[in-house]
Amino acid sequence: MTARAKLEDLSVVLVRTRNPLNIGAAARAMSNFGAFDLRLVKPFEKAFREAVSAVGARTVLAEAREFASVEEASSDCSLVIGTTAIGNRELQHPLYSLEAAAREIRRRPAGRVAVLFGSEKTGLSNSELSHCHWLLRIPTRQEHRALNLAQAVAIVVYELSRPALKTRASDKSATAAADMQTLARLNRALREALDLSGYIHPRSAASAEEKLRRMLLRFDLRAADAQVLLGMLRKILWKLHSTEEEAL
Amino acid sequence: MTARAKLEDLSVVLVRTRNPLNIGAAARAMSNFGAFDLRLVKPFEKAFREAVSAVGARTVLAEAREFASVEEASSDCSLVIGTTAIGNRELQHPLYSLEAAAREIRRRPAGRVAVLFGSEKTGLSNSELSHCHWLLRIPTRQEHRALNLAQAVAIVVYELSRPALKTRASDKSATAAADMQTLARLNRALREALDLSGYIHPRSAASAEEKLRRMLLRFDLRAADAQVLLGMLRKILWKLHSTEEEAL
Repeated sequence: MTARAKLEDLSVVLVRTRNPLNIGAAARAMSNFGAFDLRLVKPFEKAFREAVSAVGARTVLAEAREFASVEEASSDCSLVIGTTAIGNRELQHPLYSLEAAAREIRRRPAGRVAVLFGSEKTGLSNSELSHCHWLLRIPTRQEHRALNLAQAVAIVVYELSRPALKTRASDKSATAAADMQTLARLNRALREALDLSGYIHPRSAASAEEKLRRMLLRFDLRAADAQVLLGMLRKILWKLHSTEEEAL
Repeated sequence: MTARAKLEDLSVVLVRTRNPLNIGAAARAMSNFGAFDLRLVKPFEKAFREAVSAVGARTVLAEAREFASVEEASSDCSLVIGTTAIGNRELQHPLYSLEAAAREIRRRPAGRVAVLFGSEKTGLSNSELSHCHWLLRIPTRQEHRALNLAQAVAIVVYELSRPALKTRASDKSATAAADMQTLARLNRALREALDLSGYIHPRSAASAEEKLRRMLLRFDLRAADAQVLLGMLRKILWKLHSTEEEAL
């Protein structure tokens, strides 16, 4: 997301939101600051579009799309960020303050950025977090961390809409980042190779998939590198399979 | 208000607020960011304290005070700031963006600062504005200026809390990066796997090694992830070797 493109490349993803008023208020804040792509993962109330008429939110709401999972909602994004109120729990992701996160986002190459907001009661689940590259936290008082959902969305889009003060020259950013679909393919191929070679025990297969996803996200792959890796893995897989057959 | 004093010297003044939910949500956001002095000028609904129970807002609400006028509500303040959504109307006051306003506030000597928010429908009246030193505006899209009241309060207290709370959470750099020795091992293991599976043609072996190294460096691996990757590759290699032997 470059400074010029501002919030056009931002997708706000509300996950399992319970209160339709929060969806309406989030949509309004998005519209205030120029973010228009709202995505809803399993919203609690299906009729949110009719139920909610937050001032000026109509366009954003009307074009909001529903998805069955975080994975589907973020498949065309090259950067997926989870929001969390938790500061000191053992986190498996890098954690940025909102301000640092905004700087990080502005530095990146073009590409869609998803920011995930969990449900009012539970936040994002571990499984949902496993689809995130990293996390952001809005710095609050220790004693009262839990922000209202729609206010959190408002603060995030406000911060991201802030004009970029410094346009740092390209570092890692010269090239496009890998999208989530390619990462999912990589994940599958790697898992297959690890299955075939006995690295993954069947009884830990589910958690292995999540661990692999987290690791691949940490690598922050460029699109071109992800393709190269995929090609390597496929060749290795082909070899592993052909020798499996010989062994039969 | 100095940086050290944080938001203790801030008074949020809600003027003629109509919706008690907005009062509750504003109180919650204040509590999130450490502002505790809420003042209400002629709230529309007298019973807002009972009506509203926004999460964590109880203390702020319980201690909120009611006033009959902006003048009374701001009598102990040394700086009174009005908020406005209007950018180009003929204003009789200096107008600052929120960011500039926050800088301005921080520069001041100690002393209570009031920030006024007008009613949802009409904003602040000219008479109310006449009590203000200057105005602040949250920069929004031209086409959709009107923020939800409670979201506006949240964004203002967020921005004002910024320098005081800036404790950068662990960012990516907190974890150790992989050293070059580990990367060299990874490189050799990966190359061997690619040799065995026929990915690398013998005549391009030299350049392949360099390409692999560049790619691994781009991944910017953490030490722990590099070890995991190495373990995976060794297991895959073991499988590739064992099947090679069977094929002999």
